[in-house]
Amino acid sequence: MDWMLTENGYDSSLAATLGNKFFIGNGYLGIRGTLEEYEKDQLVAINLSGIYDQVEKKFREPINAPNALYTYIEIAGERIGLPNSETKSHQITLDFAHGLFGRKTSYPTKDGEITVESERFCCMEQPHIICMKYCIHTGVDMEVTLVSGIDADVWDINGPHLNNVKFSSSSKEENTFELSVHANTSEKRIGINVWEITSLRILDDIIPDCLEQRKKQQYTHEVVKAESKILNRFTISLPANGMVCFYKYIGIYTEKDSALYERENKELLHHALLQGYGTLKSDHMEWWKKCWERDQVVLEGDEEAMQALNYSLYHLICIAPRHSKSMSIPARGLSGQTYKGAVFWDTEMFLLPFYLYTEPKVARSLVKYRIDTLVGAKKKAKEYGYLGAFYAWESQEGGYEACSDYNVIDVFTERPMRTYFRDKQIHISSAVVYGLMSYVHTTNDYSVLEEGGVEVVLECAQFYYSMLLQKVPFGQFELHDVVGPDEYHERVNNNFYTNRMAKFTFDMAVELIQNISKLSKETQNKLAKQYGLSALLTKFEEASKRIYLKDPDKYTKLIEQFDGYYKLKDSTLDEVRSKVIHPKEYWGGAYGVAADTKIIKQADVVTTLALFREEYEQDALQKNWDYYEPRTEHGSSLSACMYALLACYCGNPDQAYPFFLKSAMADLKGGGKEWAGLLYIGGTHPAAAGGAYMTAVYGFAGLTIKEGSIAVKPCLPSSITKLSFLVQIGEKKYRVTVTKEEAFAVCI
Amino acid sequence: MDWMLTENGYDSSLAATLGNKFFIGNGYLGIRGTLEEYEKDQLVAINLSGIYDQVEKKFREPINAPNALYTYIEIAGERIGLPNSETKSHQITLDFAHGLFGRKTSYPTKDGEITVESERFCCMEQPHIICMKYCIHTGVDMEVTLVSGIDADVWDINGPHLNNVKFSSSSKEENTFELSVHANTSEKRIGINVWEITSLRILDDIIPDCLEQRKKQQYTHEVVKAESKILNRFTISLPANGMVCFYKYIGIYTEKDSALYERENKELLHHALLQGYGTLKSDHMEWWKKCWERDQVVLEGDEEAMQALNYSLYHLICIAPRHSKSMSIPARGLSGQTYKGAVFWDTEMFLLPFYLYTEPKVARSLVKYRIDTLVGAKKKAKEYGYLGAFYAWESQEGGYEACSDYNVIDVFTERPMRTYFRDKQIHISSAVVYGLMSYVHTTNDYSVLEEGGVEVVLECAQFYYSMLLQKVPFGQFELHDVVGPDEYHERVNNNFYTNRMAKFTFDMAVELIQNISKLSKETQNKLAKQYGLSALLTKFEEASKRIYLKDPDKYTKLIEQFDGYYKLKDSTLDEVRSKVIHPKEYWGGAYGVAADTKIIKQADVVTTLALFREEYEQDALQKNWDYYEPRTEHGSSLSACMYALLACYCGNPDQAYPFFLKSAMADLKGGGKEWAGLLYIGGTHPAAAGGAYMTAVYGFAGLTIKEGSIAVKPCLPSSITKLSFLVQIGEKKYRVTVTKEEAFAVCI
Repeated sequence: MDWMLTENGYDSSLAATLGNKFFIGNGYLGIRGTLEEYEKDQLVAINLSGIYDQVEKKFREPINAPNALYTYIEIAGERIGLPNSETKSHQITLDFAHGLFGRKTSYPTKDGEITVESERFCCMEQPHIICMKYCIHTGVDMEVTLVSGIDADVWDINGPHLNNVKFSSSSKEENTFELSVHANTSEKRIGINVWEITSLRILDDIIPDCLEQRKKQQYTHEVVKAESKILNRFTISLPANGMVCFYKYIGIYTEKDSALYERENKELLHHALLQGYGTLKSDHMEWWKKCWERDQVVLEGDEEAMQALNYSLYHLICIAPRHSKSMSIPARGLSGQTYKGAVFWDTEMFLLPFYLYTEPKVARSLVKYRIDTLVGAKKKAKEYGYLGAFYAWESQEGGYEACSDYNVIDVFTERPMRTYFRDKQIHISSAVVYGLMSYVHTTNDYSVLEEGGVEVVLECAQFYYSMLLQKVPFGQFELHDVVGPDEYHERVNNNFYTNRMAKFTFDMAVELIQNISKLSKETQNKLAKQYGLSALLTKFEEASKRIYLKDPDKYTKLIEQFDGYYKLKDSTLDEVRSKVIHPKEYWGGAYGVAADTKIIKQADVVTTLALFREEYEQDALQKNWDYYEPRTEHGSSLSACMYALLACYCGNPDQAYPFFLKSAMADLKGGGKEWAGLLYIGGTHPAAAGGAYMTAVYGFAGLTIKEGSIAVKPCLPSSITKLSFLVQIGEKKYRVTVTKEEAFAVCI
Repeated sequence: MDWMLTENGYDSSLAATLGNKFFIGNGYLGIRGTLEEYEKDQLVAINLSGIYDQVEKKFREPINAPNALYTYIEIAGERIGLPNSETKSHQITLDFAHGLFGRKTSYPTKDGEITVESERFCCMEQPHIICMKYCIHTGVDMEVTLVSGIDADVWDINGPHLNNVKFSSSSKEENTFELSVHANTSEKRIGINVWEITSLRILDDIIPDCLEQRKKQQYTHEVVKAESKILNRFTISLPANGMVCFYKYIGIYTEKDSALYERENKELLHHALLQGYGTLKSDHMEWWKKCWERDQVVLEGDEEAMQALNYSLYHLICIAPRHSKSMSIPARGLSGQTYKGAVFWDTEMFLLPFYLYTEPKVARSLVKYRIDTLVGAKKKAKEYGYLGAFYAWESQEGGYEACSDYNVIDVFTERPMRTYFRDKQIHISSAVVYGLMSYVHTTNDYSVLEEGGVEVVLECAQFYYSMLLQKVPFGQFELHDVVGPDEYHERVNNNFYTNRMAKFTFDMAVELIQNISKLSKETQNKLAKQYGLSALLTKFEEASKRIYLKDPDKYTKLIEQFDGYYKLKDSTLDEVRSKVIHPKEYWGGAYGVAADTKIIKQADVVTTLALFREEYEQDALQKNWDYYEPRTEHGSSLSACMYALLACYCGNPDQAYPFFLKSAMADLKGGGKEWAGLLYIGGTHPAAAGGAYMTAVYGFAGLTIKEGSIAVKPCLPSSITKLSFLVQIGEKKYRVTVTKEEAFAVCI
């Protein structure tokens, strides 16, 4: 299959989409696939993980670092570059086998053609380091001005986040120029340091042997401080067939990484300079080679699907927080500030399996992030008058709830709309328990339980218990006034997914209390001191038994998504779409076009059935699939994969296939929803990527893990003749191979 | 005081307001205070009580009868009349001592001035009959064309309701002309018959003695059938100082009144013709004279307040359904089709006391209407999955729920807005119980209990019982997801008013079950067969005890209106008003300008405290008044009177006074809210009138009735030196007299 993505020609309207598609990243930072001469209007972002800032009362969001990739050229005093200049040819590439972004553009000038080429990568082994190579060549004698430096006027959705911006420059060695910028965030005054070293070389012609030919540099240099920018400005007389190149080493460090962040950044960067671009690049490529030996999923017979799936995995690999023992992944990865860079249920329900089976250490970091943010979750529960832990719907560092009560702007009045993501989407806490217990059940790593995992489960169970309502005349336990995964129907009672996940939470709490003896004496004592465990056991057992769960209808086998769903208008998707007046209007909310219809945003009952399929007859699974699919907008990238998964569980991989492909191609193809009201929500879609992986391993390969033992079962769609991948379960690694007829997992 | 309202001069923009202010009615029908030449654009309405119709899927609403008052003049082929013609003088009057509408308009013409005078009343003793006198006189010789007949092209908000319109005409006697129109409603094909007899007289001059002077009529006559109209067209040569007059007798009868409605109408009308205008008028005036002897409230020292209050009572007298044993009163009286002509909680909570103390038979009819619509209430409860009786929020005949789930049109999108009046404003059932038990407790008329009243109370208690939710960890009973009187905050939990009224309902059910032996053996047996009374007793006693009622805060004495109210933004009214973009936008709803603030539409906690004041210390009453009043928009005409009442209970009649006056002047002054979204909600305000009465008798006179005995207590505002009125309690009548120092009730 082709591991190279290529985009030929230039269309400025694709800047946002290509920024996502040609993304590179290393978990510490992500770089949108934008051009070197781009500025904030073209949505340039070097997006940093785990560091957030709030300006005034605007949405809190992650930081985009000053852009040290910033480079453009001038000829005869005129700036040449995109999106403004005419091009003769233009191409960008992404080698996603090795995380390399490339660019080649030729411009016609009145004197002749000039070509710009660049390459960049963010080092996988030194995640603070970004490397870029940038070359210009021309067929005629030409005086070229090359401008490159740091652009601190970054793209912010709710900025400006960078304060007290201070620039400095130096040039210690011949042909080597250093620039740096220091800034503080607005809210917590966190220091951010971006340092770059540019090493310039001019060649008389492009023959590689002549690299050192011209010793005497024919250029002038000055440092220019423009508004919010510091720039090296080189004016070079380039002979016909000559070439000028520079290698740029960029170091990014913040005060969150280390108190000595400036010094460490400088040292690391000088070490990188000593290693040189070639060494850094080959180390980087070697890292990727090993990574793919472990992570690649082979789909024989279907190159398109294999490319899409592995491209999806590429994104997951790029955003894994390997540099931290306790960090999670934002819903839009590191592709920008959309969704406030916050962590959603996506992590536990859609991303975790991939890391669990390929890099359990990353999975542990994701889980540990939730343990370490329990304090925030308890605070939030208390705020709403509940017990236990109510995790943030949009979680930032420390469990800070970034979700506002007014998360959408009404397109008609431009007023903030009261939304209920924050206060009613209570299923988030069960997702945390689901993720944590998946980790424990898969890895048998009890240390997360010792380090606070038990408390997470008990506090989440307490939370649901404190929300339970009993109908006085009937006695069953219910959960009212919630929002389920289908966000188009707000404030509903007994959402099937929510109730089932609350029951799951009670069950996990019961399991942990019953097995408390497996933990260390110290942990046992601590928990016994903190909780009345036997009383909790009784409560949670009762709650699990009595919580209201709709059974499939005796005849139709259907399960109602929430109380009253069946009474809604049975509109078609087209009918709902035809009601839309404003292209950016929000379909949900009290008066959204979908709100009073059966049209749902995303898989809800179907997600529940996919998670708990063993509790239902196959007939019920299929009938609910058939009922809900035509009523689903798939307005969330989390939707298609759940339909794919459930179709596999129904034994219909060919029905699953288009949904699998839709998930896998979410970022490759682009074109997802980019607006909710007046809020921009574009970016990459890690959850769709994770969902595609889940479909491949759980669906097509039928992978199940029970008490540490692995089972597989073939369920391949027509186009795929063979599927194979590695998984790690606990300490053991298996190669799973699936053909049409058989599936086996071999311990390696 | 002045019993005559006069409006001098003409301003076409006041047509809607004056239509309400100069209203006349007799309970069977209401006539807006519009001019004879007006058509539907000027909101003419002869609004009929208790007969409703629905066209397609539009709102169901009451019928406006074909307008047989329709009259205009032409001079030299040109139509003269308002709003189009220039006037020299114009005046309308309402003698509300006698329910007489008058009008006098002089128009300049090129030949000289012409004056039109009219008078009309709807007979109080024969409610199917309307009488009108219409005269034209001029100072110069003039040929006048007088056109008068029936305009069937009536004003409809959601019409057209009149189908198969058939006209006929005849002229049996000299100078007497009959026209009639028959139509059917659209939905139930109910026949409607309007018959008119016009008796024409022409006088050479205006001296009364000359009435019979000219025997030979100098006019030509033809019947014209225009579109949706049938008209007598008289062309008259009127000498200088001459006058032409006609008396018109109008009969209105529907198939709901009688199967022989056409014949009965005709007979009644011919009988009226025989009686003649003079006799009918003097009988009518005599009726009013006796009525005021009973109903007048004297406020010595404050003419303005006395006029406003008695003008309010005038409206209540005009809309009382004396012609029926089981009928109630729409929220906008008989002033048109706004609010769908439907019966709201207004009847029980605001109108009933006046009728209870002045015309208990009318009160009984109002109560009986609820008993007879129990079937509809039970059906509605079942529709929502509840037990018992959930009364219609907007009740039409048979308890038909006219309230839609989409009761407001969004001004920004012109889409229907999902509203929660219908399904969440559950306090309506408790209002029905409150009204019924007020009737029983005041009159000691147990016959309403025998005739189905007990079932009403038990079924309403069952309804609330079936809605009760218990918080599993705490055990108290709660009511969730409701709308209280303050409709700006939708879908709240534990609204103080709603919970207290539900408790009241449980208490009444308990009282009735405990006193069942006071009813006839037959009723006792029937109830015993229908209900497990002792089990109900246990349930309702427990529910009354355990239902969650917020206590006044220990320090502030404040009571939170609903769970979470205190967390809302503490905006001022001006701040909220400043957010309004569109003059007709609805302040409530999920995103209304008030929804996320503490600004409330109307008295809510204050209403509860006014109803149950004896349960609270005076300090708590006052502190809640002080807290909530500045946060109340008084966007409902039901609001001010509750503030007035509670201020009296706090011993502050002067604080009450402006709120009392606001209530009493609701229709006299006009200018209330006329729009909710794109829905016109103008009309008269009987509940404000009733609320003004309640303030006078309960507040200023401190009237209380306990177990048939009456108590009064002086609480007069500064401007009123003496207050006196009659009340009937059971069989006894009392004259209540209140001065600053003392109050006494003397049995008469």
